[in-house]
Amino acid sequence: MNNFPSKLVEDAVNELSKLPGIGKKTALRLALHLLKKDADASLSLGNAIINMRQNISFCKSCHNISDTDLCHICANSHRDKFTVCVIEDVRDMIAIENTNQFTGVYHILGGIISPMDGIGPDNLNIETLIRKVKNDEVKEIILALRTTIEGDTTNFYLYKKLKDFNAKLSVIARGIAIGDELEYTDEITLGRSILNRTPYETLMIG
Amino acid sequence: MNNFPSKLVEDAVNELSKLPGIGKKTALRLALHLLKKDADASLSLGNAIINMRQNISFCKSCHNISDTDLCHICANSHRDKFTVCVIEDVRDMIAIENTNQFTGVYHILGGIISPMDGIGPDNLNIETLIRKVKNDEVKEIILALRTTIEGDTTNFYLYKKLKDFNAKLSVIARGIAIGDELEYTDEITLGRSILNRTPYETLMIG
Repeated sequence: MNNFPSKLVEDAVNELSKLPGIGKKTALRLALHLLKKDADASLSLGNAIINMRQNISFCKSCHNISDTDLCHICANSHRDKFTVCVIEDVRDMIAIENTNQFTGVYHILGGIISPMDGIGPDNLNIETLIRKVKNDEVKEIILALRTTIEGDTTNFYLYKKLKDFNAKLSVIARGIAIGDELEYTDEITLGRSILNRTPYETLMIG
Repeated sequence: MNNFPSKLVEDAVNELSKLPGIGKKTALRLALHLLKKDADASLSLGNAIINMRQNISFCKSCHNISDTDLCHICANSHRDKFTVCVIEDVRDMIAIENTNQFTGVYHILGGIISPMDGIGPDNLNIETLIRKVKNDEVKEIILALRTTIEGDTTNFYLYKKLKDFNAKLSVIARGIAIGDELEYTDEITLGRSILNRTPYETLMIG
């Protein structure tokens, strides 16, 4: 995109378009939107971004984003500290919390093993998880990573590392979503849901 | 979206989601992206936004965004100052400049008349355009606004205000896009393109 009328706008557009999913055209639309609004709007936005990044800290226990030493979940005495749900990032935590079905705590890996993206086990918060399990602080680990090759690889890596300790290892149920029609379900999901069928008596509806 | 783990992240997400086309989920994705990157990335982004809004100025002549008193187009002695293309905002200018077909100057209205959005003629840069025409500084005005009811209304308003002066008024050609098939063209465009047919001899291919 040439013919930029202003270096200031060009700089802002360049910075905005570094964000994922935002191209030059969208960035320009956002910049022009900010120019139409009061200067206060841009000041609040800019400062909120800078502030967040500079003052962010992480929970010592689960690596969740937190303004305090322990996040609000780990610090909550009503949560079951012996059941740990392993997730990729904080968005998964928000999604699971919104179901109101989980009363344990989380462990945030900060990603999944993905050699294509140069992410190995050492780049993830795996050591602290192993330490918790070794110290007998955990009774059950629920793996809730995405069902891709990378997710399965990470699950397998964690299984190998943790299988010799006392903690029980489980994976969240995969199957046909509630309300979905069999006809339109992909064959891998359908096939797995037959292999991993659930006894009718244990069927729980959330 | 509840269960936010951090006030700092929540603030940034709230600010980001005020941008057009960015909802809470996308805002959270952007915030988490920034948290994964160096603090410098957030600092550059935040400062570029604040800087742009605080130090922006507009061309005295055409209302283009500009770091100087006159924008680079109005200040260019090779541009034909007597031919003025009236546009809605700076994105239209960038689009037209990219064609390399226009050697005149622009006049940026800053929007179009849209009673539904509470935008009347007084909210737009119309007075300065009329003044230019009154002072005989303009020979031709090319209206290049969008073809919607609002665009047509704005064209008509400008026509009524400017028709008694010497400047010639024209509207950019509307018709079937080059490469388009007649079969798939909407009927209004096709109908207009027959009514406003061009003599073959004057046909110019850009």
